[in-house]
Amino acid sequence: MRATLIHGERDIRLEHVPDPVLSTGGDAIVRVVAACVCGSDLWPYRGVTPTREPHRMGHEFVGVVEQVGPLVHRIRVGDFVIAPFYDCDNTCLNCRNGVTTSCLHGGWWGTDDELGAFADGAQGELVRVPHADGSLVATPSYPDEALIPGLLTLADVMGTGHHAAVSAGVRQGSTVAVVGDGAVGLCAVLASHRLGASRIVAMSRHEDRQRLAREFGATDVVAERGDAGVARIKEMFDGVGPDCVLECVGTKESMDQALRSARPGGMVGFVGVPNGGPELPVRQMFDTNVGVNGGVAPVRGYVEELLPEVLSGAIDPGRVFDLELPLARVAEAYQAMDERRAIKVLLRP
Amino acid sequence: MRATLIHGERDIRLEHVPDPVLSTGGDAIVRVVAACVCGSDLWPYRGVTPTREPHRMGHEFVGVVEQVGPLVHRIRVGDFVIAPFYDCDNTCLNCRNGVTTSCLHGGWWGTDDELGAFADGAQGELVRVPHADGSLVATPSYPDEALIPGLLTLADVMGTGHHAAVSAGVRQGSTVAVVGDGAVGLCAVLASHRLGASRIVAMSRHEDRQRLAREFGATDVVAERGDAGVARIKEMFDGVGPDCVLECVGTKESMDQALRSARPGGMVGFVGVPNGGPELPVRQMFDTNVGVNGGVAPVRGYVEELLPEVLSGAIDPGRVFDLELPLARVAEAYQAMDERRAIKVLLRP
Repeated sequence: MRATLIHGERDIRLEHVPDPVLSTGGDAIVRVVAACVCGSDLWPYRGVTPTREPHRMGHEFVGVVEQVGPLVHRIRVGDFVIAPFYDCDNTCLNCRNGVTTSCLHGGWWGTDDELGAFADGAQGELVRVPHADGSLVATPSYPDEALIPGLLTLADVMGTGHHAAVSAGVRQGSTVAVVGDGAVGLCAVLASHRLGASRIVAMSRHEDRQRLAREFGATDVVAERGDAGVARIKEMFDGVGPDCVLECVGTKESMDQALRSARPGGMVGFVGVPNGGPELPVRQMFDTNVGVNGGVAPVRGYVEELLPEVLSGAIDPGRVFDLELPLARVAEAYQAMDERRAIKVLLRP
Repeated sequence: MRATLIHGERDIRLEHVPDPVLSTGGDAIVRVVAACVCGSDLWPYRGVTPTREPHRMGHEFVGVVEQVGPLVHRIRVGDFVIAPFYDCDNTCLNCRNGVTTSCLHGGWWGTDDELGAFADGAQGELVRVPHADGSLVATPSYPDEALIPGLLTLADVMGTGHHAAVSAGVRQGSTVAVVGDGAVGLCAVLASHRLGASRIVAMSRHEDRQRLAREFGATDVVAERGDAGVARIKEMFDGVGPDCVLECVGTKESMDQALRSARPGGMVGFVGVPNGGPELPVRQMFDTNVGVNGGVAPVRGYVEELLPEVLSGAIDPGRVFDLELPLARVAEAYQAMDERRAIKVLLRP
């Protein structure tokens, strides 16, 4: 089969690799229907995190189950499935606590699973899925083509935006500012809207993203950043700031902006992969009672809540995909996202 | 009147100072019935935070109102009152949000208020209280002598322990570990117990504090610290850790222990005054979904909830006072706490 590997900075290649085979009993082989490029894929692409040896890429996919191991009971051959950006057994104590990203037996796409068998990256034609019963969620039937992008967001960005909102305690009537206008930030706007936030400020300088943010439920847009951005946000909320700030970037600047924007006693929900620090200013947090909650989003547990709304069309997070390319052009997909010509690129094998 | 000043490291003096006078209209003069020494008073006492010039000390007191300004309507002369460890108007937006410690017009004992009039420290005979209607809570009648210590804890330590528990999300059935066996840590045990925690581990190496922790509702005591303490706590909770960890110290070591003890997806409630850092490890928090919430405790807002239980004897947080001294011996009070001969010292003017 063909699969995507990174060889180094800005060196993305689609190569022929061995087809995966069932090996652990609880696994499944899934033929990828759609995959995509994640903002976090840009860290190795840009060389911010070094690539020591070529490795598989991609962690978001939907597809059709082709084979299942003898220990798989819930997932069946022919199912259309959504895979979270990690695998999990969905039965261990951490999974039962809702933190499937800390599954005691789980792992990550493109690495060996706990039994030493390889789990493929998602930017390819086939993926061996460990813990298929725990990891995969099947849709009731094969979905309409138009729903594929929305379903694909449940693998990561929509669940991650939702996690930012949930972690910050967004509820009916909350006031919210969202730092970051990538796919996750936009999904965080949508998540805040469906949770009932009364006012949602999207922080964005890009007209197309501002427009989508408004369509997702943003009531206001702020283009300023840094000190000016903080001042503008404070001013919009009676000088004290909003209840919740959703940090969807992961840089020093974005976290600092989030922490300084929240009102005293407010909460920062953070889901941006921290990109080399900094550490959080504990004294500032102490003085203001601004808390920080979030992390790598346990999206598996959110699929059941969000899936019906995607299937019914009540929410359409798939609109974050503004470019679709065949898998053969995966290198172009990275380039488009790197140059911010696309919010998020959908790949079709 | 007599009041306590610090002149430098381990130099605490009771001196004659001018009696306070009403000055802002909304203020009151309170005769102190009981005050105390706080763990945070030990930072300047030990020279950890330098004393640049002599200043008043003390921020916890209960007393009787002797005079009120013309703009005071709720509080009356003769009331027995509890003062939080700060003053607040209890009407501004931050106060309405429950964060009275961030009152837009509030201040701290022993400093000038927003109008430039001095608010006395609590370790003295009289205190001028700005924003008397907002800051003070009157008891229904003059309390029984035996209740005075418990009422005094509502000025700080009981409300602060409660804030740690509330900030960490302690609720019916929660599992909790408390880092710190000072008065705040012990009150955090008591607060967790009354909020319905199913298991509460007190981390303590001192037999008298262990005993009081058990009487306050601790189900377990762990004497180990650092790596051994973390390992022991993890082991007690199925290898993953408790839902909530209450950080009631404020050092690098205690925060590190708290963050590493909580289960994935758990929450650290922190109220220990951060003593010079360190900053919080954002990547570790991201990977584990352990959040950090808390800060300087808005105890004013907790008085109404806790007061009836203190008055009825349902809770007796006053037991954290294991030494009582006349105000004239205030220097001894600091010494006893510094040498850990006393958990907390009550002072009688």
